[in-house]
Amino acid sequence: MSKRKRYLSRRPKSTKALNQAPGTVTYVGRKENTETILEVIDYNADSYERHSNQTPEAAFKFEEETKTTWININGLSKTKEIEKLGKYFELHPLIIEDIVNTNQRPKIDEYQDYFFIVAKMLYYKDDGELENEHISIVLGKDYVLTFQEAGGDVFDGVRERLSARKGRIRSRGADYLMYALLDAIVDHYFVVVEEMSDKIENMEEQLLSAQPSDEITFEIQELKRTMLRIRRAVFPLREVVSRLEKVNSELIQEQTVNYIKDLFDHIIQVSENIDIYREMSWGLMDMYMTTINNKMNEVMKVLTIMASIFIPLTFIAGIYGMNFEYMPELQWKYSYFVLWGVMFVLFLLMIFFFKKKKWI
Amino acid sequence: MSKRKRYLSRRPKSTKALNQAPGTVTYVGRKENTETILEVIDYNADSYERHSNQTPEAAFKFEEETKTTWININGLSKTKEIEKLGKYFELHPLIIEDIVNTNQRPKIDEYQDYFFIVAKMLYYKDDGELENEHISIVLGKDYVLTFQEAGGDVFDGVRERLSARKGRIRSRGADYLMYALLDAIVDHYFVVVEEMSDKIENMEEQLLSAQPSDEITFEIQELKRTMLRIRRAVFPLREVVSRLEKVNSELIQEQTVNYIKDLFDHIIQVSENIDIYREMSWGLMDMYMTTINNKMNEVMKVLTIMASIFIPLTFIAGIYGMNFEYMPELQWKYSYFVLWGVMFVLFLLMIFFFKKKKWI
Amino acid sequence: MSKRKRYLSRRPKSTKALNQAPGTVTYVGRKENTETILEVIDYNADSYERHSNQTPEAAFKFEEETKTTWININGLSKTKEIEKLGKYFELHPLIIEDIVNTNQRPKIDEYQDYFFIVAKMLYYKDDGELENEHISIVLGKDYVLTFQEAGGDVFDGVRERLSARKGRIRSRGADYLMYALLDAIVDHYFVVVEEMSDKIENMEEQLLSAQPSDEITFEIQELKRTMLRIRRAVFPLREVVSRLEKVNSELIQEQTVNYIKDLFDHIIQVSENIDIYREMSWGLMDMYMTTINNKMNEVMKVLTIMASIFIPLTFIAGIYGMNFEYMPELQWKYSYFVLWGVMFVLFLLMIFFFKKKKWI
Amino acid sequence: MSKRKRYLSRRPKSTKALNQAPGTVTYVGRKENTETILEVIDYNADSYERHSNQTPEAAFKFEEETKTTWININGLSKTKEIEKLGKYFELHPLIIEDIVNTNQRPKIDEYQDYFFIVAKMLYYKDDGELENEHISIVLGKDYVLTFQEAGGDVFDGVRERLSARKGRIRSRGADYLMYALLDAIVDHYFVVVEEMSDKIENMEEQLLSAQPSDEITFEIQELKRTMLRIRRAVFPLREVVSRLEKVNSELIQEQTVNYIKDLFDHIIQVSENIDIYREMSWGLMDMYMTTINNKMNEVMKVLTIMASIFIPLTFIAGIYGMNFEYMPELQWKYSYFVLWGVMFVLFLLMIFFFKKKKWI
Amino acid sequence: MSKRKRYLSRRPKSTKALNQAPGTVTYVGRKENTETILEVIDYNADSYERHSNQTPEAAFKFEEETKTTWININGLSKTKEIEKLGKYFELHPLIIEDIVNTNQRPKIDEYQDYFFIVAKMLYYKDDGELENEHISIVLGKDYVLTFQEAGGDVFDGVRERLSARKGRIRSRGADYLMYALLDAIVDHYFVVVEEMSDKIENMEEQLLSAQPSDEITFEIQELKRTMLRIRRAVFPLREVVSRLEKVNSELIQEQTVNYIKDLFDHIIQVSENIDIYREMSWGLMDMYMTTINNKMNEVMKVLTIMASIFIPLTFIAGIYGMNFEYMPELQWKYSYFVLWGVMFVLFLLMIFFFKKKKWI
Repeated sequence: MSKRKRYLSRRPKSTKALNQAPGTVTYVGRKENTETILEVIDYNADSYERHSNQTPEAAFKFEEETKTTWININGLSKTKEIEKLGKYFELHPLIIEDIVNTNQRPKIDEYQDYFFIVAKMLYYKDDGELENEHISIVLGKDYVLTFQEAGGDVFDGVRERLSARKGRIRSRGADYLMYALLDAIVDHYFVVVEEMSDKIENMEEQLLSAQPSDEITFEIQELKRTMLRIRRAVFPLREVVSRLEKVNSELIQEQTVNYIKDLFDHIIQVSENIDIYREMSWGLMDMYMTTINNKMNEVMKVLTIMASIFIPLTFIAGIYGMNFEYMPELQWKYSYFVLWGVMFVLFLLMIFFFKKKKWI
Repeated sequence: MSKRKRYLSRRPKSTKALNQAPGTVTYVGRKENTETILEVIDYNADSYERHSNQTPEAAFKFEEETKTTWININGLSKTKEIEKLGKYFELHPLIIEDIVNTNQRPKIDEYQDYFFIVAKMLYYKDDGELENEHISIVLGKDYVLTFQEAGGDVFDGVRERLSARKGRIRSRGADYLMYALLDAIVDHYFVVVEEMSDKIENMEEQLLSAQPSDEITFEIQELKRTMLRIRRAVFPLREVVSRLEKVNSELIQEQTVNYIKDLFDHIIQVSENIDIYREMSWGLMDMYMTTINNKMNEVMKVLTIMASIFIPLTFIAGIYGMNFEYMPELQWKYSYFVLWGVMFVLFLLMIFFFKKKKWI
Repeated sequence: MSKRKRYLSRRPKSTKALNQAPGTVTYVGRKENTETILEVIDYNADSYERHSNQTPEAAFKFEEETKTTWININGLSKTKEIEKLGKYFELHPLIIEDIVNTNQRPKIDEYQDYFFIVAKMLYYKDDGELENEHISIVLGKDYVLTFQEAGGDVFDGVRERLSARKGRIRSRGADYLMYALLDAIVDHYFVVVEEMSDKIENMEEQLLSAQPSDEITFEIQELKRTMLRIRRAVFPLREVVSRLEKVNSELIQEQTVNYIKDLFDHIIQVSENIDIYREMSWGLMDMYMTTINNKMNEVMKVLTIMASIFIPLTFIAGIYGMNFEYMPELQWKYSYFVLWGVMFVLFLLMIFFFKKKKWI
Repeated sequence: MSKRKRYLSRRPKSTKALNQAPGTVTYVGRKENTETILEVIDYNADSYERHSNQTPEAAFKFEEETKTTWININGLSKTKEIEKLGKYFELHPLIIEDIVNTNQRPKIDEYQDYFFIVAKMLYYKDDGELENEHISIVLGKDYVLTFQEAGGDVFDGVRERLSARKGRIRSRGADYLMYALLDAIVDHYFVVVEEMSDKIENMEEQLLSAQPSDEITFEIQELKRTMLRIRRAVFPLREVVSRLEKVNSELIQEQTVNYIKDLFDHIIQVSENIDIYREMSWGLMDMYMTTINNKMNEVMKVLTIMASIFIPLTFIAGIYGMNFEYMPELQWKYSYFVLWGVMFVLFLLMIFFFKKKKWI
Repeated sequence: MSKRKRYLSRRPKSTKALNQAPGTVTYVGRKENTETILEVIDYNADSYERHSNQTPEAAFKFEEETKTTWININGLSKTKEIEKLGKYFELHPLIIEDIVNTNQRPKIDEYQDYFFIVAKMLYYKDDGELENEHISIVLGKDYVLTFQEAGGDVFDGVRERLSARKGRIRSRGADYLMYALLDAIVDHYFVVVEEMSDKIENMEEQLLSAQPSDEITFEIQELKRTMLRIRRAVFPLREVVSRLEKVNSELIQEQTVNYIKDLFDHIIQVSENIDIYREMSWGLMDMYMTTINNKMNEVMKVLTIMASIFIPLTFIAGIYGMNFEYMPELQWKYSYFVLWGVMFVLFLLMIFFFKKKKWI
């Protein structure tokens, strides 16, 4: 299957559920048949528990303790269970709608008792495809909820640090956990952007090579599209993090603010990189254009050289192929050999002319 | 009729009524001869009535009750009846002018007792044409007026939810109804933008195909124009909704604000999509250019190969067609066959040369 | 005279009077020899008088009454009379300078007793040329002064409404008159922009036609220039009107503000249109480029087809024109006819090859 | 010397003195060996004195009087004398540095007792070269200092008005003088921009002419560069003047503010013109490109027509040049003439074909 | 090794340490094996000491005195010693992370007792490569810490002035030292930008030369990339310096603020230059394109001229090479010479035709 075809088959179809009442909870993503799996991590500086595959009800009892509780939900298609969670944590109906609406752009909503954050997780799956996964984070007093479209995420580092008591993560509260999760997401943006940079450079290589594939215009166009999609995933997060930095709420502790500032720095940096590679990608079509024209130039030179050398010589041969009765040269004994000589001199002159023009 | 012709015939003609006193009510749209039809929906949490085809006077009696009243007017050419309505609801003369001026851009005007909102409804009609319909909404205490250019709109979902008591729409007031109507409009922007995305991708396909139609430059130009027109319909609405979100008026209830925020989110999202597809459409002309040049390259290669092979061979044949009396080769018995051999070798060399250059 | 030449002859010459003291009153426009003509319209709700061709002194007596007085001055080259007016109405010397400086961009200056507004009047003259006329408006208590470069303006509608007692114009004061005048100016922008839109579409048509004129690059460039000039005339007026809307002065009555808001709406709308057509005009050069290249492609195809068919056939003919003594085919009886057959088959193969490539 | 060479020889060399302590006074301009010349103009409403070629010490005595004193310094390479002046007027060391640093961009520094303004003087020298001269203005109580790189400036009009008692310049103070000087500078921007406009139009002419010079790409690139440099000289001055307008200092009298507003207007206007011509210059390369391609089209048409007509005819001639023993046509008496006829018909058909395609 | 290859080998690899706890101190730069070298300069107006190659502990004793202490650290890979310094000066863990994270963009963090500044040092190494070095500056009470990736910097001028008691640097405090260091960094931006300008002009030269190298598209693309990277290094520093100018802290003395303002001026200036050269570089690809097309034009002209002259002549020769029995011209005695004459006339006509078209 050509790249072009594969691309088209991957294209998401119409994505907004129409004519529905606002607040209706309908999953519109592409991972319809994944199960909804709950994982609970409950910890404080001294203890650490991890429970996979819980029912919502089982998860609630962890939240009631004073430890920090991270409930991670994979799979959004079973909206019932998500509504159950929403009811327990008293989430606004529109939040539940946003959790399952995978088209929702990154944003932050501040409610009295919790913050609701939407972000986009970009990472490469095992088969090398770029995954753009919708993720929602609810930060409450002592708990963090994360909702993902499917299993597989960028949080393994965070989990490891939690279990290994590495760094300061265990002794800080839920706000630091939320920061750590966002930090992991932003860190993966760097990886993805790096990959885009490699792709652009590979394309530059290919464009200058002898025989750029005919599909390269298509690939350039697709690259631009991907850039724009990454941009759309990343840029709104800047406002989200900037808002987090400035918000005045007891949900965010004083000592976490410096870390959020650092996170903001990183996201500005990745945004700048995206814009640089975007500008680079603009140049690709121009490069291709000059490559095509250079090749055409070469083709024309071969034609011109061949034609310019042999057309006059053929003309001369044509002259002496004429059947006039009185053509004095025809009778001379060495005419033929003299003619060869003349032709050879003409040939050399032509070669010299083209050499001087640097066409050969 | 070619696409180009159809497009031209569709083009609206001079659209601003000139030299008229401000406040003069003249319909400038294209649907001159549609009738003006009134539809009244009168509801509260417990009851629901729908009356089509009413006279303005009949409609007024519904408004007098405490229920929420939605009066929808289809057809703006009979300006008399609209003025009658305007007088009853005490609308400012400039509002009446804006209701029938289909060129008015989306905006919000806040008056003491009502809000006046202009928006553009984009949807596909049954014949597949994109309809850009001027719509005006007046939100008052307990009533919503909507003015449309013609029958056919994007509000069927709202009507259904109203009649079916689905969702919270029946128990909320006129402000929620207005929100629901705007939400329906914005939802259809997504459909339209999705369609634009499909069109762009179809064009990309066509541009890379063997024989792109000659009209494609025209279609690209028209696509850009459509993008700009959609943009113009959608972008000003952002300010309108943002204003609604921040306005401090008893016309908008506290609990509706969250929904308007959500609406604002959606409209930002559709704006971002529009800008992405707009940027994609910029690349189309470049793609077409490279396609043309690639094709020219191919044409030139065929010419160059044919000419480069046969012109030298013809020259050789020309040589032995000369009539010199003394040409030793002519008498040798196997000259002719040797010559065929030489020519074949030359032919092979040429083929080898072009193969190495990857031209064949 | 070609379009190019006409364009060049029309180009304004150096336009800023140099090395002059600021406040020096020198007319720098192109209509040097037009006379300065005064017209006075004096009206209130009940009465209406119109006096053409007045001396400044005669005009002053109208102003002294309580009626609203509109003094319109056509022709700016006789700066003496303008200075006389300026002295009577106590205008700042810099205002007088701006009135005759046709290069002054649209602006508003707020003085204690009057507002000074500069705008650009765009309209089509009888000969189809676009006129960009400098107009200054002074709004005072009970009077409006307008200064135009020459006769012919866009105010006929206003004059008519004044004399015919149409609309509310007669019963409102000088501020409403000023609004009506600005509204008439802005209304004509729509006409001009509509015309630009037509020009762009005509050019698109021409670009896709068989034989686009060689002057079309020039025309595209000129179109862009005109767009930029219209833009420069229109865009600064936005700030002027926006300022008028917000200004807190007894010169502007409460009830006029809504009308000015409406005017602001219109000017935003015309600005948006200008930017759309500007963006459209950017695409014209690209369209032309693809058209040229498509044509070149066609030319090359004809050449390639002719050469590819006949060069090999000529080669074959050349072979049997050789004078070798021993060429067995020459003696065979049906050689000639067989050869015709072979050639015809080759010809068909070529045609088939080009058909498959869709070149014919 | 070609334009390209001249341009390169004119290019300024490395311009920032490196590794120096801040505040070090080193002239970095190109006019190393010009002398430093002082000129003093001392005036009030009644008297006027002008003294050229003064020593700094002599100049100080004028300042001590109550009259307004304008000290103009031409030539910045003798930094000693400038430091002497600086010490007398108590200028900050960084100001002295900025006076001689010709790379300093336009700016305003407000100190307690004086304002320091940097601007760029653009004007055409007698040999037609565009001069970009660094100028510094110090406005103090009762005095104005101006520092120029070399003799020759745009202030002759101001000097004349001062000596001729023309306008209000003599009766106003130092602030009005400063305004008059800035006004003279800005007035000359109009001249320069006008000249750029002429250059662009000349280039457009040349690009559409039969044989655009090969150096035109270079000239377009140089034109863009010049535009950017003018822009850099002019645009920062907007902030300077805007600051002057708003500053609340006893150095600027109330009555001068209106003049500064007018100056601001002018500089906005020249900025807009610059941006228009800049946008126009972007189109030049595209115009050149279409011109080249149009010419190539013409070349290809000539080739195609010649080849398409004569290659088939040559083939026919080749047929009857074959030496087959049995070719019936050869014996027929009128074959030769019939063949001429056939060829002529073919020729006419070809001509007709190309006429229909509008290639001839 | 071609430029392209060298460029690719230089490309930095994946640069962000992933899955690490925030605050983890890992050096991610490319200079892994450089040693960490401490240099201490301790001075006041009267004394000056310089100690190279110190241990951190030895450095601390200098700090305890009242003199100003500048501790410069070269080499960031031995993170242990940097953490030791960090602990002594009580730096926040995130600061230590930023010091060794060479991807950190320029920024300023204000803490209670010190300011933390990140900048990028751009300079040319001895082998002519552009070095982009990460530099961190900590400004505390009486001390400045600078952290560089490797030896070799732009501070030699500062060191010299310190040791030579040149300028006011010795008598001012740590804030002036910090200013002097930033000034040295910004001064080198001018050098780098100057170099870019030279590169662009060299490319323009090359593009207009007879035979631009095939690698030039690649070089243009690389130039754009470098421009973007320089931009990214320089632009964020504007905010840093602007912040320094406005900050209200006892770390910055009153008298230093004027110098910082001056620094801000310089950085604005270098930013403007960067944007000018960036805009210039956009034109390079267009220039290349026109060059290619001009060359193709020339090639086509040679082909067209050769073909147009000799194809008709060959046709004529072909005519008289036919073997018809009855061709009257063949018998005439002077046919052959007449024919030569005819051909010569045709040749001259052709030459005349092409001369008129200015193709030769």
